[in-house]
Amino acid sequence: MSESFPGYRGQALKFLKAAGAEIGDVVRISKDSDNWEGILIPRSESGDEHHIVIKMKSGYNVGVRVDASTKVTKVGEGIKPTFTPPPLPKQKKGLPKVAIISTGGTIASRVDYRTGGVRPAMSARELYSVVPELSEIAVIDTEILFSIYSENIVAKHWSATAKAVAKQIEKGVAGVVVAHGTDTLGYSAAALSFALQDLPVPVVMVASQRSADRPSSDAATNLVGAVKAAVEVPFAEVVIAMHETVSDDRIVFHRGTKVRKCHTSRRDTFQSVNSEPLARMENGKITMLTKDYRKRDTNRKVVVKADFEPKVALIMAHPDLSPDVIDWYVTQGYRGIVLEGTGLGHVGDYLFDALRNATKKGVVVGMTSQCIWGRLNMNVYDQGRDILALGVLSLDDMLAETAFVKLRWVLGQTNDPEEAKKLLMEDVANELLCRTVYGRIGC
Amino acid sequence: MSESFPGYRGQALKFLKAAGAEIGDVVRISKDSDNWEGILIPRSESGDEHHIVIKMKSGYNVGVRVDASTKVTKVGEGIKPTFTPPPLPKQKKGLPKVAIISTGGTIASRVDYRTGGVRPAMSARELYSVVPELSEIAVIDTEILFSIYSENIVAKHWSATAKAVAKQIEKGVAGVVVAHGTDTLGYSAAALSFALQDLPVPVVMVASQRSADRPSSDAATNLVGAVKAAVEVPFAEVVIAMHETVSDDRIVFHRGTKVRKCHTSRRDTFQSVNSEPLARMENGKITMLTKDYRKRDTNRKVVVKADFEPKVALIMAHPDLSPDVIDWYVTQGYRGIVLEGTGLGHVGDYLFDALRNATKKGVVVGMTSQCIWGRLNMNVYDQGRDILALGVLSLDDMLAETAFVKLRWVLGQTNDPEEAKKLLMEDVANELLCRTVYGRIGC
Repeated sequence: MSESFPGYRGQALKFLKAAGAEIGDVVRISKDSDNWEGILIPRSESGDEHHIVIKMKSGYNVGVRVDASTKVTKVGEGIKPTFTPPPLPKQKKGLPKVAIISTGGTIASRVDYRTGGVRPAMSARELYSVVPELSEIAVIDTEILFSIYSENIVAKHWSATAKAVAKQIEKGVAGVVVAHGTDTLGYSAAALSFALQDLPVPVVMVASQRSADRPSSDAATNLVGAVKAAVEVPFAEVVIAMHETVSDDRIVFHRGTKVRKCHTSRRDTFQSVNSEPLARMENGKITMLTKDYRKRDTNRKVVVKADFEPKVALIMAHPDLSPDVIDWYVTQGYRGIVLEGTGLGHVGDYLFDALRNATKKGVVVGMTSQCIWGRLNMNVYDQGRDILALGVLSLDDMLAETAFVKLRWVLGQTNDPEEAKKLLMEDVANELLCRTVYGRIGC
Repeated sequence: MSESFPGYRGQALKFLKAAGAEIGDVVRISKDSDNWEGILIPRSESGDEHHIVIKMKSGYNVGVRVDASTKVTKVGEGIKPTFTPPPLPKQKKGLPKVAIISTGGTIASRVDYRTGGVRPAMSARELYSVVPELSEIAVIDTEILFSIYSENIVAKHWSATAKAVAKQIEKGVAGVVVAHGTDTLGYSAAALSFALQDLPVPVVMVASQRSADRPSSDAATNLVGAVKAAVEVPFAEVVIAMHETVSDDRIVFHRGTKVRKCHTSRRDTFQSVNSEPLARMENGKITMLTKDYRKRDTNRKVVVKADFEPKVALIMAHPDLSPDVIDWYVTQGYRGIVLEGTGLGHVGDYLFDALRNATKKGVVVGMTSQCIWGRLNMNVYDQGRDILALGVLSLDDMLAETAFVKLRWVLGQTNDPEEAKKLLMEDVANELLCRTVYGRIGC
């Protein structure tokens, strides 16, 4: 590691030193017949020793693997402007308070103007300076809880986030915004939906697909939408605020238990499944899309139930899935299994003995569908009924990811499998919408 | 089991005998405050002893579990019309030949007019009588290969189907139609796409979401579309023929490697992902939607490569996925793992050691995205590059299900992991469309 080349070591560092290139300089990397040109940017500490990362003209960062055939040349000095942050906008008086809790991800970052790199930017002052509109909506208090990629977020982070949110609510804020990476945002939204009971105010999770240094960034629009929702919406539920389409003019608020990431890169990647979003913001105005929600009520006191059982499996049922997989989980002491079955809720008959053994041993087994859309109906075909007879529970229109989080939560609340099954089949946080209300979109 | 009550035994049989109800009679089942009324229908032999199955007015079959609190009463005699099949339509002369190979599923069935039950109906005569339009399109030869629910279809069935299709092609048919259940149709379509190389004519897989006895059945429309495509389309690829929307007027032909079942019950459940369908049929006319396809050419000779390695895993990467799961597959001698990662192709860093160990031991590990739509880009973030450095392969825009089938096929063709990796990353059957062609829908 070198101080003038943050994040670079080994082979990559050697190439940079030989080229006489500094962070911020324009470099060209040639390899076979390919060429890449861009601004040399620093790497995070976890970086390997084989890649040089440059920011290309498109705004995208690219990591190029260097080897014996690679040439690195410096083709231009870095333009190193002195950056003066814009003056802090004047805070309006009498605005409601909103807490922004940051866990990491693209949204909780701002551009380093010298290198083009992206770094955390979450002080209220920095936020106001990057997104001045915020100072007209709320008085913002920021808290950096973690600063990690969301693919590294696990149940202990869900618990810590739930507790941090509750603490902010107890301080009397109008709403809480949670900044989070997009990758596992759907899981975390479900986790907070179950862990935060009796919410008096909304909890708005927010993310962005494109970092703030790209022209197509959705960071500012989503953040403004999230803070506005925290202040204004009439509901007190956990939602995700993201673009409704690829254009910037509409933000929707998806229920935390009915939403999943459905595209690797599009800005409207989050989609409500088997349900409509709760509300939409257009031209700064928020409209409710359903009358069926839990109302804001500051007389309620939030209850935190943030225990999640680690020994729960989420298994995609595919042709020739070996029954040994199910058996292994049982012998390892797993207490719950969520199956992503096919169609209306099926798995191959070659798994029946293993599933019967699992349920007999007290493992709670729930069925969802890998179709994603639509509800289960395990009574249409003989084989569905046979699977129910094995003791497998039909989880109706619950998303597989939500079912996985819920089963972990349920088994964190009780040690009794029968009680767990009952709780799993009850609607706790609008995760089971189709069961009672037919005729909804996708049901 | 009783001859007058096919499929019924134990408790369910007792109730029926006590009620004096026969197959075809209208019965009412009461339980707590719920009531079901419908025609008593026979059950398949795999049925348990706890359910009575009736066909309700809606056309849906419902299985009601009987217990001590249940009452079964006969409320009406079965109407038992004598059914005379319509006269066999006159076969037009000089029509091309099409083979229909049936593997089972809802499409390969017809109503029993006495009981309302559904049973296999796949002789050419029966098909013509149920769907008379077929006799004006082609001379049909039918072959019942299996008669099983598609959730029970595994790789040995893929191989047998590929061989049966090749045999029909060698007989000189204009095209082959494969009838199949919807549940695992996507997997089987991918399997045939890889197993049937150098196809001279199209292979059209077809299914239905609603059985032929329901007013909303899609069976006839899909079958007509499939047979017409087998005769007329200019391409020689494996496709799935299904409804484009919920209405009956458009059938689309999805590429076998780029399609998945996306809704538990809708008729337009199959969707092309990261690609458009190859063609559409509207008002009996087929229009190509792309110019980029392999042309029909009866001078080509089909080559069957129908070996699929059983020791391949498909693993959904979720928060807290235990590295022990990866380790277990390695110790069990698995040769390949397909990960459904998050976002652009990520997994938690807590899995890095296990993945490094797997690739070092020669296990081929491929990354796909649980987002489903969009292509991977493991070069955007440090963590993606770190995962590449572990030896994990980025499978771009390949569907997880297709990647799983392909890796099984690849490892069925070679024992050398390096050769397998090379073949996995090459486009074999249009499964890797985004890699070369940008700007496509979803790429």
